[in-house]
Amino acid sequence: MLAETLAAIHSADPVVLADARAYQDRLTKPRGSLGALEEVAVRLAGAAGVTPPPMPAPAALAIFAADHGVHARGVSPWPQEVTVQMVANFLAGGAVANAFAAQIGASVTVVDVGVAADLPDDPRLIKRKIAYGTADLSQGPAMTVDQAVQALEAGLTVARDLVAAGARCLITGDMGIANTTASAALISVFTGRDPAEVTGLGTGIDEETHARKIDVVREALLVNQLLADRSSGGLTAPAVAALAASEGSSLAAGAGQVGVRSQATEALRALAAVGGFEHAAIAGFILGGAAARVPVILDGVIAGAAALVAAALDPAAVDHCVAGHRSAEPGHSAALGHLGLRPLVDLELRLGEGTGALLAHPLICSAVRVMHEVATFDSAGVTEKPV
Amino acid sequence: MLAETLAAIHSADPVVLADARAYQDRLTKPRGSLGALEEVAVRLAGAAGVTPPPMPAPAALAIFAADHGVHARGVSPWPQEVTVQMVANFLAGGAVANAFAAQIGASVTVVDVGVAADLPDDPRLIKRKIAYGTADLSQGPAMTVDQAVQALEAGLTVARDLVAAGARCLITGDMGIANTTASAALISVFTGRDPAEVTGLGTGIDEETHARKIDVVREALLVNQLLADRSSGGLTAPAVAALAASEGSSLAAGAGQVGVRSQATEALRALAAVGGFEHAAIAGFILGGAAARVPVILDGVIAGAAALVAAALDPAAVDHCVAGHRSAEPGHSAALGHLGLRPLVDLELRLGEGTGALLAHPLICSAVRVMHEVATFDSAGVTEKPV
Repeated sequence: MLAETLAAIHSADPVVLADARAYQDRLTKPRGSLGALEEVAVRLAGAAGVTPPPMPAPAALAIFAADHGVHARGVSPWPQEVTVQMVANFLAGGAVANAFAAQIGASVTVVDVGVAADLPDDPRLIKRKIAYGTADLSQGPAMTVDQAVQALEAGLTVARDLVAAGARCLITGDMGIANTTASAALISVFTGRDPAEVTGLGTGIDEETHARKIDVVREALLVNQLLADRSSGGLTAPAVAALAASEGSSLAAGAGQVGVRSQATEALRALAAVGGFEHAAIAGFILGGAAARVPVILDGVIAGAAALVAAALDPAAVDHCVAGHRSAEPGHSAALGHLGLRPLVDLELRLGEGTGALLAHPLICSAVRVMHEVATFDSAGVTEKPV
Repeated sequence: MLAETLAAIHSADPVVLADARAYQDRLTKPRGSLGALEEVAVRLAGAAGVTPPPMPAPAALAIFAADHGVHARGVSPWPQEVTVQMVANFLAGGAVANAFAAQIGASVTVVDVGVAADLPDDPRLIKRKIAYGTADLSQGPAMTVDQAVQALEAGLTVARDLVAAGARCLITGDMGIANTTASAALISVFTGRDPAEVTGLGTGIDEETHARKIDVVREALLVNQLLADRSSGGLTAPAVAALAASEGSSLAAGAGQVGVRSQATEALRALAAVGGFEHAAIAGFILGGAAARVPVILDGVIAGAAALVAAALDPAAVDHCVAGHRSAEPGHSAALGHLGLRPLVDLELRLGEGTGALLAHPLICSAVRVMHEVATFDSAGVTEKPV
């Protein structure tokens, strides 16, 4: 299932990208005057393979929830049971993600991929629990590679089903006390940055806890033998991209790409070693959206870490992603820089749940709407500025 | 009419501000995790005088259109007739502002306060033409003080009528070829910054035109004798605020505030000397929204310049304003800094029309919606982080 999905992912169409850029310049506005939004619309056109790109609505938020064995190391001031309590809050419609989703008319689906408690039946809850939380990543692998693939496939399935139900934009969400620790470890591995540079304050910790959190991330990389390739820049997406490009196709399309395949294997091993079930599932969700040519809005640092995994499996997936926002976590900026994505909202949010991505959705819709509705200089009879 | 409006403006209620901040901390999210959006919701509560503040919807965009005598100095590459052509485009629904307004369900009203052409009747067009464009501000006053007051009152009336028709959020828009030149002159006067620091590229000019534009702004300040008070920081809002605060009331509330009143007179004189009709009208629109306790989302550099005028007339008006975005114009950042406002969207837009403010509207709605819909730790049974 993972292999089929990877085979279905296409890079942005360069001809459509050029067409979309040319069309932007014919619209009744000074060239470039919509700033970063012009590039968003152009990228979505390239990803969809058509100008103008389809309106990215309705949107569907999927909140992937899981717990983390590393919580035992005291990396978060919040008790672990807050994960399950917040799942109940999402299902009752009382969380910030619910309010933001209501504002943009997005559906909310919660996916249990590894909460450390049994959950009640609920029409908004999809049960794909891999285990009752991961193992402690600072003592050994957080999960097996088989479990990582199971979680990836859970995310793929959710994406596929939401698109089948009518979603034209997918929004990543997450819930998992201690998941910024796993995010920092993944980002360190995939970008080659030092743990101290990419480990932040999460939802709010003191200096002592922050120092411990950095140590824990370092231990995790050491015990899982993920420090070896640091000199080469880690498991970088650009490295994978270069390999894939040299083969002239995306990662899984060919049969003989030994180098690429081993890169994918390494990525899965790293994901299993220091990731969370929600990171794996979000990586799958991204790949599923990309395979369906539906844009995926990435939320904060957890989605950024997951996108690095998705990009290592198929760099073309990034063409279908929009960075919703920049979170206050330093690792998030590192991940976005590595992916080459510019965030749309930058308001120091550090909540997760999909909140930053939900805020970006109307901006993306506005960007695309311009290509559908705005008159050209010719059609409106507006004099163009002499070039 | 202006005096009555000024008398009706109240500062943010400090008790409500404190209540709103305390309520934010009871909601099921880590404290401060919504970053700048928490402060937006708190400010709107203080301005409205109630927690939670009313949802700022539906929104109404008013695009104030006018021409500028200074266009003759070659400060813009666009021919002047683009103003009237774009008015036709707004009325036909073909401009970017129309697309962005459609995205958020906002009404669009165009107000002719000084277009240099006769306009056809149209249900979306309000005719309040003061003159067929301003005089050249680099040769003498752009308008008389009487005309400035007429334009202010046109803006006041539009705000009052839109609120009476049901608008719960006002969005500033502008159209006027060469209006970034008048904006730069106003910002220089009201912030005390040098013309070279606050004069930008508008919608796109070359270096030679930029240099000429700076010279023109400098000439305008000189010929209109607006350079005298530069050492004192210009006609600063904080200066007015200090005066008003020392009297314990907003600017026009008292009868004996000679110092404040002469500051207002100076502000009107400066507005008339180097402003545009749309700047005056937008200043009135801001005051009208503030008097009605309806939030006003400011667009880019034109709105920023107008807000400086409004703040000089009554600093309490700023409490009712939200900075929609930061435009690429350097003068806009100077104006926002002076007003103490943090922009929500920062995507290098430089279009005007209200586009940046329209993009911010869903972010503001999301911020307010949190206060209406999100559960508290107590009500949701979520364990609070130990402090």
